[in-house]
Amino acid sequence: MEKHRDIDPAVFRKEGHEVIDWIAEYLENMDPYPVLAATKPGQIKASLPKSPPAKPDPLPDIMNDFRSIILPGMTHWNHPRFFAYFSTTSPYAGILGETLSSALNVNAMLWRTSPSATELEEVATDWLRQMLGLPNQFEGVINDTASVGSLCAMAAAREHAGLKIREKGLAGRNDLPKLRVYASEEAHSSIEKAAIVLGFGQEGLRKIPTDDAFQIQPAALEQAVREDMDAGVKPICIIPTIGTTSTTSIDPVKEIAEISQRYGIWLHVDAAYGGAAATVEEIRNRFAGWEVADSIVVNPHKWLFTTFDCNILYCRRPEVLRQAFSLTPEYLRTPEEAQVKNYNSYGVALGRRFRALKLWMIIRSLGTEGISNAIRDHMSYAQQLGESIRQNPNFELIAPIPFSTVVFRYNPPNMKGHQNELVVNEINEGLLNSVNETGKAFLSHTKLRGKYCLRLTIGNLKTNWEDVQLTWDLIQEKAVRQLVA
Amino acid sequence: MEKHRDIDPAVFRKEGHEVIDWIAEYLENMDPYPVLAATKPGQIKASLPKSPPAKPDPLPDIMNDFRSIILPGMTHWNHPRFFAYFSTTSPYAGILGETLSSALNVNAMLWRTSPSATELEEVATDWLRQMLGLPNQFEGVINDTASVGSLCAMAAAREHAGLKIREKGLAGRNDLPKLRVYASEEAHSSIEKAAIVLGFGQEGLRKIPTDDAFQIQPAALEQAVREDMDAGVKPICIIPTIGTTSTTSIDPVKEIAEISQRYGIWLHVDAAYGGAAATVEEIRNRFAGWEVADSIVVNPHKWLFTTFDCNILYCRRPEVLRQAFSLTPEYLRTPEEAQVKNYNSYGVALGRRFRALKLWMIIRSLGTEGISNAIRDHMSYAQQLGESIRQNPNFELIAPIPFSTVVFRYNPPNMKGHQNELVVNEINEGLLNSVNETGKAFLSHTKLRGKYCLRLTIGNLKTNWEDVQLTWDLIQEKAVRQLVA
Repeated sequence: MEKHRDIDPAVFRKEGHEVIDWIAEYLENMDPYPVLAATKPGQIKASLPKSPPAKPDPLPDIMNDFRSIILPGMTHWNHPRFFAYFSTTSPYAGILGETLSSALNVNAMLWRTSPSATELEEVATDWLRQMLGLPNQFEGVINDTASVGSLCAMAAAREHAGLKIREKGLAGRNDLPKLRVYASEEAHSSIEKAAIVLGFGQEGLRKIPTDDAFQIQPAALEQAVREDMDAGVKPICIIPTIGTTSTTSIDPVKEIAEISQRYGIWLHVDAAYGGAAATVEEIRNRFAGWEVADSIVVNPHKWLFTTFDCNILYCRRPEVLRQAFSLTPEYLRTPEEAQVKNYNSYGVALGRRFRALKLWMIIRSLGTEGISNAIRDHMSYAQQLGESIRQNPNFELIAPIPFSTVVFRYNPPNMKGHQNELVVNEINEGLLNSVNETGKAFLSHTKLRGKYCLRLTIGNLKTNWEDVQLTWDLIQEKAVRQLVA
Repeated sequence: MEKHRDIDPAVFRKEGHEVIDWIAEYLENMDPYPVLAATKPGQIKASLPKSPPAKPDPLPDIMNDFRSIILPGMTHWNHPRFFAYFSTTSPYAGILGETLSSALNVNAMLWRTSPSATELEEVATDWLRQMLGLPNQFEGVINDTASVGSLCAMAAAREHAGLKIREKGLAGRNDLPKLRVYASEEAHSSIEKAAIVLGFGQEGLRKIPTDDAFQIQPAALEQAVREDMDAGVKPICIIPTIGTTSTTSIDPVKEIAEISQRYGIWLHVDAAYGGAAATVEEIRNRFAGWEVADSIVVNPHKWLFTTFDCNILYCRRPEVLRQAFSLTPEYLRTPEEAQVKNYNSYGVALGRRFRALKLWMIIRSLGTEGISNAIRDHMSYAQQLGESIRQNPNFELIAPIPFSTVVFRYNPPNMKGHQNELVVNEINEGLLNSVNETGKAFLSHTKLRGKYCLRLTIGNLKTNWEDVQLTWDLIQEKAVRQLVA
């Protein structure tokens, strides 16, 4: 006797159509939604039953609860005035790609567990490589996030040092020196986290000071490497960033690459955010040097308009990634393994979602020109905003604007001199909160040389200049009130 | 001037409805699809353009290529006769959950970046905790896979040892002994991979021999621990498995827990597959001991009918996970951080998809009884198949059947004695390939004590006894031919 354990397909069809229509409505006009959720801690949890239902709940009831309970507690990342952290986009083609991927539900761990998933990953990551202007020696592997992509690259660098770390590990060995990786003090926290996970420890990451433009000073880097080598410490990896998180500063990769080559150290470039801009040919010179890197991470799910999550680790030494990660127990052996790519051998996770589908659909749906033109627009909006800030004597830019992120603060002339930095910081923190509380725009912040700064990143496909202008007006309006308060 | 950079929403609506209808058709009748893709290496790649299009491709064209190029190269994990590796399911509610999640496109890294995502993760993982009968000290964190969940647990165990590993790392320290983790020789390869990543190295994982039922012998484990301690090696973590990959054997967790408590060693239970069966109350005694573990991984995306990917790491010491992983640079600070859970502090990846939505929708849509009844059915089918195998003198069961996985081989009496194991192995490998090539069912294999075995796992929500019977008939039919050939 056949058992039907899932819901009636007719119900799925009906609710599925409604979901599609709801998504279209939602994305067509997000004005009714506050960008940052206006929710108190614990509020959503308190609205949900403490225990699961024994009997099935009808799908329409679940959808109602989604709309009435879950939705009011969302921060709307797809909103065109989401300017916090790094803006992202899930375009229509990406939503359908993820819908199909979740129905197929494949695990792309081995070629045979889904040949299309593996081969499309090869093709789509190679398409993007071409869009970025990288040499064809680079092979791409999709991971969830740059945190994991960079960890994999650093594990490959560790393996590449030839110290039998895979076999013997790091602890309790008297034949092993201290190991060090190098990044700027502005490098992303994921580099430090990877250093912890991989057993380098926080002390195993040397944070190189930056100059006034928040870029690594190559001389300081080289000096640090030499000091370490003189002290018997083994350099494992140098990690410049193209587009740091706080200011999107660009480390001088070309000079850093020369240092890495001079001393034979693995070069890993963190271009998780900035990499997207390499699709804009006329500014590709800003990436000079990354073409000789051993590995690079780029996040299509940031400024390349790809549904979250999708990170690509490009590696010109994929065989070293394999050395670091490949383990093939008998139950994962396949007859064709010599002829194909089994992607699980290139990273931490055995199980792998079919992420290449959305990436391929999005690139096709937007076209490479559509993608690079949107990025061009975003950069021009950022310059335009920068110019407005420069022209307003009450505000100051705190960092250059190499891409689409603007870092600034409110600092009216009458406050200078007779008030200290801490007060200015408090006022800017208050300003940020008062802007975000309106629900009309969401910005985030950072601190640079002790200064609390507002950070506005432009990166959503639907963001227009009007969105930036409206937000800049709002900031100025709230700033004045902040001073009165 | 407003710029429209994504496709026309009307096109999305139309194609979206078609995608939903296609999915319903696809899942209603998967008979036309071969379970294992009948594709040659390189075939899909060769059908795709080498470079991306400059101008947008219309969505209907992309969908056509999906159907004509991508689909023929899929292995169909949602097929009711997918019996390989561990079977999975993406129920209708999960597909809609993922569709919504991809439209919302939130990053659940911080509470404020999506309060509902964070709080629903707390609620849904707690619902599942209750379904598994675990004590309420366990808090759940969703990761992509058990590979990553176990790595996080092992990193917490390493941190818990109090050796300042986070700060100082592992290399070049003369104050650090060799470190060891313990698992059975049947433990999943992800444990070994995590040992490599974390710097324990392959030698830092001691694989304890198993008995005839492929279970750890506690005495052998205790002896290994004592030997190591006597030799100055520091035990960090003991990792029994409930449901090993090859045979789904169950390590004696209760006795192992006693050993871990006796010596003060972190106990991490890998129940990625087997954990699901704890929802079946009458067999929960098989899990005895796991309730005192420090950490447990369970994969809803395996036998709990949850759309891939979704792993849960349950930890009774979440503060140790935080110690191991938490890094909060200024740009991730939030005013509410003392009152909320910022999930990025509990694992490797900063960016986190909104996976709790599908999990919550699926549990509600199926109901806890629907889930446990399906698992009961699967276990009974496995017993029934085991009985059929026992009754056929040409076949032999190679391992007990504690859950829903049956490990067996073809070994007719007339082959015994005068032919060696290698020939029997070859015949079984040929048998597996000939069954899989029919496209009617997909099984995988393993090797046990040198014997090549067929592995049939029952775990898809739509699998009925008829699917198992049909496959068993097919195996018998192909086995006879194998002998003639």
